[in-house]
Amino acid sequence: MNEFDFIESLRSQANSRRHSTRVLTGIGDDASIISEAAGRDLIVTTDLLIEGVDFHRGATPARLLGHKALAVSLSDIAAMGARPFWSFLAIGMSREEWKTNFKDEFYEGFFALADRYGVTLAGGDISETKDGIVIDSIILGEVASGAAVKRSGARPGDQIYVTGNLGGAAAGLKLIELGASVELGSPGAVFPSPAVRGWDDDAIQTLLLRQLQPQPRVGWGIVLGEQQLASAMIDLSDGLSSDLNHLCKESNVGATIDAAAIPLDDDVRHLCGRRALDPLALALHGGEDFELLFTVAPENVSRLPKKVDGVTISRVGEINNTSGVIRIREKNREWDLQAQGFEHFSRST
Amino acid sequence: MNEFDFIESLRSQANSRRHSTRVLTGIGDDASIISEAAGRDLIVTTDLLIEGVDFHRGATPARLLGHKALAVSLSDIAAMGARPFWSFLAIGMSREEWKTNFKDEFYEGFFALADRYGVTLAGGDISETKDGIVIDSIILGEVASGAAVKRSGARPGDQIYVTGNLGGAAAGLKLIELGASVELGSPGAVFPSPAVRGWDDDAIQTLLLRQLQPQPRVGWGIVLGEQQLASAMIDLSDGLSSDLNHLCKESNVGATIDAAAIPLDDDVRHLCGRRALDPLALALHGGEDFELLFTVAPENVSRLPKKVDGVTISRVGEINNTSGVIRIREKNREWDLQAQGFEHFSRST
Repeated sequence: MNEFDFIESLRSQANSRRHSTRVLTGIGDDASIISEAAGRDLIVTTDLLIEGVDFHRGATPARLLGHKALAVSLSDIAAMGARPFWSFLAIGMSREEWKTNFKDEFYEGFFALADRYGVTLAGGDISETKDGIVIDSIILGEVASGAAVKRSGARPGDQIYVTGNLGGAAAGLKLIELGASVELGSPGAVFPSPAVRGWDDDAIQTLLLRQLQPQPRVGWGIVLGEQQLASAMIDLSDGLSSDLNHLCKESNVGATIDAAAIPLDDDVRHLCGRRALDPLALALHGGEDFELLFTVAPENVSRLPKKVDGVTISRVGEINNTSGVIRIREKNREWDLQAQGFEHFSRST
Repeated sequence: MNEFDFIESLRSQANSRRHSTRVLTGIGDDASIISEAAGRDLIVTTDLLIEGVDFHRGATPARLLGHKALAVSLSDIAAMGARPFWSFLAIGMSREEWKTNFKDEFYEGFFALADRYGVTLAGGDISETKDGIVIDSIILGEVASGAAVKRSGARPGDQIYVTGNLGGAAAGLKLIELGASVELGSPGAVFPSPAVRGWDDDAIQTLLLRQLQPQPRVGWGIVLGEQQLASAMIDLSDGLSSDLNHLCKESNVGATIDAAAIPLDDDVRHLCGRRALDPLALALHGGEDFELLFTVAPENVSRLPKKVDGVTISRVGEINNTSGVIRIREKNREWDLQAQGFEHFSRST
């Protein structure tokens, strides 16, 4: 039984044992929806980050890890069209790590992002590990009753959009694998490893930070939810091919994607040119961009804002009724887009 | 800086950056209190369990670990006088573990306890680790607005009570250290190691399960909260000496404890007799009993029920105004009770 099958079995088990009618959506979306009271629903998400799997200490300054731990959960709340309010952090580290300034820098990065979005650290847990760092990042948010945007609301004819540019986080990961690193002490300083020496330092910096310091699309999430613009939404944590697949599966629809419309930034092209990589592959299958993928009914397209917090959106395709099939078109070619996301079995249940 | 100092600094940092006036209690209690709406407060707790620190695989059948992961968080919700509703489980395990039936048995134990208290598994996360199992157990509960029982409400003259008996979990841990183990397949079967051969099998079984399958005092928590009987409450996770210390510190009071009144069960005495251990020391300093320690104003004492769910309570002492000092009396002796809880730095923030 693979991880998806297990989560499906857990989902049906949890559903059949649902004691509370106030759980509107449990396992199977970016976050859970619980009916609160007085016109509001509570949105809850939890993300486990494990050293050596989800991040590598050598490549990740503690301050950026504090940012990222919060960012990945903020992204889940955004993907529900909700507003984040309260954070809880469970963190485990070894006795040796406890003596370093890791925790101080970690919380510094955490608070800097939390303050930006008015999120309050409301509790948590601190524990010991034998070795390695473990973080569980929990956020509670809210949305007007019934206004949460689920993965399951896409309908044939809906237009598919993504925020920002794709592939940057995967490109950043390639750079880390090539030995490049970022130094936070002196702003903007990167350490290009021998393998990337002579490349554009600004491009390296941008891509490393796309991987290490993702920017959750909190503003877009709130606008799309509050103005009821999106019919379905998911955040791009596993990669477009995987995440669009999840959305289509939950909505019981298919999709066509226009390859030329997928937003790539110049830095990704620059890196791919240097390494003979296909930028489209990074954009389609690279994970951790933490952009939002959402669908919009045709009648709502004209109501979409051009930018929120300076971030643009791109129309990349359309939902159709060929359930479970995603086709991608590039000039004269057209093929089935297979889900090729992260290798490990880390997923939100 | 030790763990308590760090958590204090985190608490003051989080308080000074509190963006939401709806966080009524954040870091520093068994769980956090968030003002919900319509006369209800939301109670949130998270507990991280790390293999090799918080539990040992060899001594812990997966089914009991699933029980315990939920039980420790239910105990925190009970300690707030609240009713548990929704659970979220973040769980990390290695690829090798993924292939075993660990996860199936774990969730079996989890669901058995969740069903008993009407708790719904509403979401979570599944992740990979390099090795070892990591669990973060989150529960959301509710209580009438302002009815949550904090650590900070004890006043001089209040009577101090505990539910159930103390020291059993610590005694169970001693047995595990002596090599005893419990077999779930055949009900009631224990494997007494050579070190404990010839001892009372039922006593071994009871004590092992006190450690491995703690029974959270959910019923007592609800009664004490809903009927506004307790002025302050904490669950006994670190041990009476540590936890009473936390309660007194938060309430800015002191306490006297009557050693003869501390409820020990006969199985603890049996084990201690065999190993020349002091049962009082286990009861005072042994952790993980997950009983409730609470204070009651003199005028409310007569309103206390004798039993809830078959569990009795014992009056063990009285709150006084000698801030931060806890005295314990035993016959002619009287001494300061020093906090001697768990050695590692695992604590709820």
